[in-house]
Amino acid sequence: MSIKMGVLGPKGTHSEAAASYLNERLDTPYELVTVPDLFECLQEVDEGRLDTALVPVENSLEGAINITLDTLARSETLEVARELIWPVHNQLMAKCGAETIRRVYSHPQPISQCRAYLQQHYPQAEIVKVSSTARAAELVAAESASSGWAAICTARAGELNGLHTVAAEIQDNMANCTRFFQVRRRGTGNPVLPKEKVLIICQIDGQKAGALYDVLKEFAERGINMTRIESRPARTELGAYIFFFDLEYTPDEQALQESIEAVAKKSIWLKNLGTFPVYTVE
Amino acid sequence: MSIKMGVLGPKGTHSEAAASYLNERLDTPYELVTVPDLFECLQEVDEGRLDTALVPVENSLEGAINITLDTLARSETLEVARELIWPVHNQLMAKCGAETIRRVYSHPQPISQCRAYLQQHYPQAEIVKVSSTARAAELVAAESASSGWAAICTARAGELNGLHTVAAEIQDNMANCTRFFQVRRRGTGNPVLPKEKVLIICQIDGQKAGALYDVLKEFAERGINMTRIESRPARTELGAYIFFFDLEYTPDEQALQESIEAVAKKSIWLKNLGTFPVYTVE
Repeated sequence: MSIKMGVLGPKGTHSEAAASYLNERLDTPYELVTVPDLFECLQEVDEGRLDTALVPVENSLEGAINITLDTLARSETLEVARELIWPVHNQLMAKCGAETIRRVYSHPQPISQCRAYLQQHYPQAEIVKVSSTARAAELVAAESASSGWAAICTARAGELNGLHTVAAEIQDNMANCTRFFQVRRRGTGNPVLPKEKVLIICQIDGQKAGALYDVLKEFAERGINMTRIESRPARTELGAYIFFFDLEYTPDEQALQESIEAVAKKSIWLKNLGTFPVYTVE
Repeated sequence: MSIKMGVLGPKGTHSEAAASYLNERLDTPYELVTVPDLFECLQEVDEGRLDTALVPVENSLEGAINITLDTLARSETLEVARELIWPVHNQLMAKCGAETIRRVYSHPQPISQCRAYLQQHYPQAEIVKVSSTARAAELVAAESASSGWAAICTARAGELNGLHTVAAEIQDNMANCTRFFQVRRRGTGNPVLPKEKVLIICQIDGQKAGALYDVLKEFAERGINMTRIESRPARTELGAYIFFFDLEYTPDEQALQESIEAVAKKSIWLKNLGTFPVYTVE
């Protein structure tokens, strides 16, 4: 029986491209299932209709993907199996013969990433936000070339829809990467993956002076390196936050465990989302 | 000559309601000018076409308003003059006689805040995101009652557009507040306002183990209380972050200054966005 991995669809999204890349590196590739919405994709895994999912968690230009963070923080069953760092290449694509670009479709994130390019080259174009880059390519493909519609999407989404490249690599900054988490239900995965990072989520009492400093001390004094901190509202009151700590794995498992236990004692609640390897694209 | 304050428009937005409240508490009220876009609103102040602006920076349910944080971090001229904590009351409003709600218009933030209510009461309704809650009310007012359109907006926006309340207080959580910053160009405002908070923005070398801990230590060891930490991508590479520290003002100005100078030495760059009072709504 094949193992099903959900990704944000339709075919041709950055998520699908990243999942295909990961698949090529695995002995037993996943069967990719496209889901139209990120929250729904995570719910499908949480509730057991999908085995796993590859979801974006952070982009180097636009920051955290809040829906992923909020869903991970509120789930009692999900953990992280793998991290993948994926370079993002945005193309401006249209039908052959489209001479004047009057309207540009894309997902809000690539639109933000290409803001300077669009302002410089197509200041008059109407910008329309849709649910994914692949959906943008579909919409443009359904219209005639004379409409002047274009999509910001992956090369693959454009090709799947018969579009050609008007301009390649149009993002404002070449250092454009998206971090993905492969998530699964606890205890359902392969336990022998390499250990490189640990994700801890906790809620700290923000009303106490120096509370965050006290927590970070537990990691710093044991030589545990934190590579990222992110905060999201706890949704109980203004000023109450949930923190996401990305820790570098250390073979000194005792120090790591002690630091997590010490942080748990200083937190309202704490979840360990797992220890996992990081994949990068060469 | 009147002093012009920009707010996200059109009339009837939460921003305009908050600005009107602030105005009632001032000896010399500002002349409110509505601007259709938050980035544009901040630019107008930065470039001197408006004197000041009141902009949302954080919501207790949905988190940071990224465009405000990113613009403040990148500006060389803006500073914070006042903070206002504004309770958010979302209403579902429609034309009299609208019996079945088939489509709901609002800004993405209230749509998120009312997600559970909409799923429970109007699971079939189409949800359409527009630029502001007031714009949502305008769109609904322009259509006939039989269309079944409704808006999530302030009571004021609904009244301005002749809508009536279908349901009041529909946000998922009663602890729904938005923090606003009143921003201005440095040195253009009243220097004798009460001192309650300090906003520091800096970029820390994220590749150095314990770098954030080292920075927080400078505040903690001098008894400076940090009420909030937020991070945003530096946009240079994945893993490089800009941090926003909200500090409680302390009359021990020397300790405060020393801690900021010590943090500046440990940062790639640091900006002090000012010391300002906090207004709350009774």
